[in-house]
Amino acid sequence: MHSLQVIAFGKPKSGALRDLEAHYATLLRGHARLELVELGEGRGDPARQLKEEAQKLRLRLESVRCPVLLDPAGAARTSEAFAQWLGARLDRGESLAFAIGSSHGFDPALKSEVQEKLSLSPMTFPHDLSRVLLLEQLYRAFAILKGKTYHK
Amino acid sequence: MHSLQVIAFGKPKSGALRDLEAHYATLLRGHARLELVELGEGRGDPARQLKEEAQKLRLRLESVRCPVLLDPAGAARTSEAFAQWLGARLDRGESLAFAIGSSHGFDPALKSEVQEKLSLSPMTFPHDLSRVLLLEQLYRAFAILKGKTYHK
Repeated sequence: MHSLQVIAFGKPKSGALRDLEAHYATLLRGHARLELVELGEGRGDPARQLKEEAQKLRLRLESVRCPVLLDPAGAARTSEAFAQWLGARLDRGESLAFAIGSSHGFDPALKSEVQEKLSLSPMTFPHDLSRVLLLEQLYRAFAILKGKTYHK
Repeated sequence: MHSLQVIAFGKPKSGALRDLEAHYATLLRGHARLELVELGEGRGDPARQLKEEAQKLRLRLESVRCPVLLDPAGAARTSEAFAQWLGARLDRGESLAFAIGSSHGFDPALKSEVQEKLSLSPMTFPHDLSRVLLLEQLYRAFAILKGKTYHK
């Protein structure tokens, strides 16, 4: 079974978001070993906060073959294209980690260090809602790769 | 206060999705008169279902100056560009309705009749999750138009 990490900062603000995240995490765990990592948000002004979060992320990502930052300006893919992208990396046995920035996004230095940026949408969504969207798309990608019919 | 309709088919599958929809609807109602219209899904095979849903939608949309269909292949906009697009129409006093298709999307004939298509993402999300995303983006658009700081 393939292994995936999803890394985020802080906790979802509402029980509804936590429930949805748990729902899609459970579905995804039917296809992959999923490690959901929740790191503490950095402190201080936004620039300082992002630097602290970047340091925590670097420690997590250094052992990962294919780290991916979620970024509205990143590569835009349809669900099918994302499934193909994911499948190719899983076939090569690459370890994958998807990181979702805090409310201020990512430190610019970190963004220049990590090559893969994935866009879930050119629109900006709250970061805790993005966690739900990412887990849903990962589940959908496995369903597409396995040729399953999955509701829209 | 501006008026908006959001039209969808069927009910969200989970309490968590209903809670999130209610959450963003309440926030949005601080800025606009929102009518959330839930139509019954059509019956029969997918083509027949979509024709029945298209008929119900036509009745709803005929009095609306600017009807919009949500479509992953529609116009992709950043949240800021969507806010400007929305603000321009509201300033002209246009009535707006956003329709979210059922699990099979929209009837092709309806898609050719309605000019405005809005993409929330090139990715496909479940239609009941798309309701949450649309309400969140509408709320975010009003926050952007009013120059409010709003979390990501």
